[in-house]
Amino acid sequence: MAERLLVIGGDAGGMAAASQARRRRADLEIVALEKGHWTSYSACGIPYVVGGDVAGLDELVARSPQQFRDGFNVDVRMRSEAMAIDLPARSVEVRDHEHNRTYKLGFDHLHIGTGATPVRPPLPGIELGLVHGVQTLDDGAHLLEHARRREVSKVVVVGGGYIGLEMAEAFVKRGVDSVTVVDGAPEVMSTLDADMGALVSRAMRDHGITVRLGQAVQGFDERGVVTADGRLDADLVVLGLGVAPNTALAQAAGIATGVRAAIVVDRRQRTSAPGVWAAGDCCESFHLVLERPVHIALGTVANKQGRVAGINLGGGYATFPGVVGTAVTKLCAVEVARTGLSEREATAAGFEYEAVKVESTTRAGYFPGAGLITIKMLAERRSGRLLGAQLVGMEGAAKRIDVLATALTARMTVEEMTALDLSYAPPFSPVWDPVLIAARKAAEAVEASAAAAG
Amino acid sequence: MAERLLVIGGDAGGMAAASQARRRRADLEIVALEKGHWTSYSACGIPYVVGGDVAGLDELVARSPQQFRDGFNVDVRMRSEAMAIDLPARSVEVRDHEHNRTYKLGFDHLHIGTGATPVRPPLPGIELGLVHGVQTLDDGAHLLEHARRREVSKVVVVGGGYIGLEMAEAFVKRGVDSVTVVDGAPEVMSTLDADMGALVSRAMRDHGITVRLGQAVQGFDERGVVTADGRLDADLVVLGLGVAPNTALAQAAGIATGVRAAIVVDRRQRTSAPGVWAAGDCCESFHLVLERPVHIALGTVANKQGRVAGINLGGGYATFPGVVGTAVTKLCAVEVARTGLSEREATAAGFEYEAVKVESTTRAGYFPGAGLITIKMLAERRSGRLLGAQLVGMEGAAKRIDVLATALTARMTVEEMTALDLSYAPPFSPVWDPVLIAARKAAEAVEASAAAAG
Repeated sequence: MAERLLVIGGDAGGMAAASQARRRRADLEIVALEKGHWTSYSACGIPYVVGGDVAGLDELVARSPQQFRDGFNVDVRMRSEAMAIDLPARSVEVRDHEHNRTYKLGFDHLHIGTGATPVRPPLPGIELGLVHGVQTLDDGAHLLEHARRREVSKVVVVGGGYIGLEMAEAFVKRGVDSVTVVDGAPEVMSTLDADMGALVSRAMRDHGITVRLGQAVQGFDERGVVTADGRLDADLVVLGLGVAPNTALAQAAGIATGVRAAIVVDRRQRTSAPGVWAAGDCCESFHLVLERPVHIALGTVANKQGRVAGINLGGGYATFPGVVGTAVTKLCAVEVARTGLSEREATAAGFEYEAVKVESTTRAGYFPGAGLITIKMLAERRSGRLLGAQLVGMEGAAKRIDVLATALTARMTVEEMTALDLSYAPPFSPVWDPVLIAARKAAEAVEASAAAAG
Repeated sequence: MAERLLVIGGDAGGMAAASQARRRRADLEIVALEKGHWTSYSACGIPYVVGGDVAGLDELVARSPQQFRDGFNVDVRMRSEAMAIDLPARSVEVRDHEHNRTYKLGFDHLHIGTGATPVRPPLPGIELGLVHGVQTLDDGAHLLEHARRREVSKVVVVGGGYIGLEMAEAFVKRGVDSVTVVDGAPEVMSTLDADMGALVSRAMRDHGITVRLGQAVQGFDERGVVTADGRLDADLVVLGLGVAPNTALAQAAGIATGVRAAIVVDRRQRTSAPGVWAAGDCCESFHLVLERPVHIALGTVANKQGRVAGINLGGGYATFPGVVGTAVTKLCAVEVARTGLSEREATAAGFEYEAVKVESTTRAGYFPGAGLITIKMLAERRSGRLLGAQLVGMEGAAKRIDVLATALTARMTVEEMTALDLSYAPPFSPVWDPVLIAARKAAEAVEASAAAAG
């Protein structure tokens, strides 16, 4: 009988593994369980469907269940939820929601890609129908249905992170009268330092979004969001408070979890249980600057981890060395990106650093369409090692973060970065790319601080 | 008496040095000689003035002579050409073209930034008035004047390199009836491999430009360009055959020159003569992949070298480790970029390599404005070290080359690159950035080749 690989979760972390395993082992029987209605989708695209840039949720699907069946010989079982993992018996209890039945399925290899769930704080009214999280396509479908049915005119987004702000902008695009973002922090985007987050808050306000900061949410009622300063009226509430790894199943089976209860994996994506692998938003990642595990839920990381797990499952050798904390988004008029450590993170990790901030332009200053870009850069004292960077700028700004992510991975110093042979032509950059200007200023700050220290 | 730094050449290689030296040494007397009419300008912007994107040549000036005088206390002497360097006497013979006089000027430190000159092959008719090179703003001014005076309707560009193609596009924008590019090579852009150059040739043709390849130019007459296949009518001819370092002055003084007669410099930009420095298009650069000196004439390199020379001149310590051969341009509908070694260069240097090519999109496939991008990547056999990359793609493609330039500088392998934490959001990239897709395919090719070699 063929060996069976059982995959729990039909999105990136699971299906990237399934397809890589298949490429290397034609003989394997592969069964994949997905509790929702979609496989391998871009949840990051949901705001663009809500905003109307993208026609429908179906466009976000990279590969359908049928494509996995036909192209990869994967037995994809939809609306099928793994209820329990029995490690000693090497089996999983499956709930088939479609046919209302439960059965057991054995496995030789198990791969867990159960993803993450939007954080729902235990506040009064959190269970009300107008309160929506945004993580799966099923979430997106519920939210869109709600928006259509109720003819929504007032939306409140709770939490000023990426997805929250993207949803806020989407509802403005959709023509909703009043869109408000409420956050307890002093600025939106707490993955940026407050001085950079302030640039984003301003861009959101300039776009007609009400941004209420330093305001804690106390609960919800049928008419909106309750805060210490009164009620914010809403006929739809979106939770943008981040996500938590969905690991109750793994924990119940005795599989080790770590940071934020994410599944502990080694560099080949092996869990603590022999023959059990995991990838994606349910897992830890190793942070290459912090040099410790973190939980970062991003599609690009899930895909990389899934691929590595699948290569190893298929008998190959691949490792996922880790992340540096890169993230990017486009919000209203500005592009926003970050990588490595913010000041808060660097301080918490015990680094001493120099932080510099420069303003430059996305193209040569004289070239049509040149827009502002602000880059903040952190370098370690004495060593001058790049620790992190954040940028906010106009069109063409964002992808510069990838140079910084690559430099972080290579453990470059800011002095080394001043000589990077970055591309220059007037439509793309000033003759000193803003990244180089920031590196120069950071290198000068490191040198000055060394001189001052004697 | 104050020590005197004499700078020959008022563009990037010279003036970046002058301003850095000033920042560190207020006491220095700094004199700068510029034979033309402009200082510190972006020659790369000339095509955009010709094409009308930028209003006039003056906009290309980063800092005027007066700004150097007022802001940096530099005695800038315009229309002043250095005719001879007398190293033993520590003096330079200066020809003042404005006042028609010649004088000698002593120096304690000398910095050479004489730049480069468009290559003018010794063909019959090359001296005719309709044949123009494009390197300095003075060249740009002559060309613009010619174009205005003669009401140009037929332009032939000789040579399909960056500047030639940019000028061809500019004349189309300007409304010239007939624009032809003629090149002896099989495709335009010989800094790319022919398969990638072909994508550029196609984009040029799609834009209404006649591209004649494999056609050697034999000479020029008053009516146009003479080739083996007949005359190409023109009332203006632009030479796009590259540039050669302008080093007759340095050579005559006995200063060592190397590749293509460019001035030999060490990593601090010191020439072979004590107290004599050089930077910019007149110098060699060290190529970090080839590990030997090359001549690369680019404003971004000139600025970096000039800055390093100036810091050292001012008593500081800075080095210019070298280049990886990065270049970028926008041509008609496509963005074109390259870094590291092409197949031809890799072969000539004795590398064995795997070359892969991938097609992907600049944004998530479902996102509005997603355009094609083709990336070619070369990795060394066995080691898997990245050797070079070329890309041609639609809006948003080009700046990805900077990730590859950074990875080259860090001597990354393509396997290491597969895990790079590059930014992802639907407006900027598919979930696997095209750079990562190329790295995956290259890593697979390296692994397959190792397996095949046993």
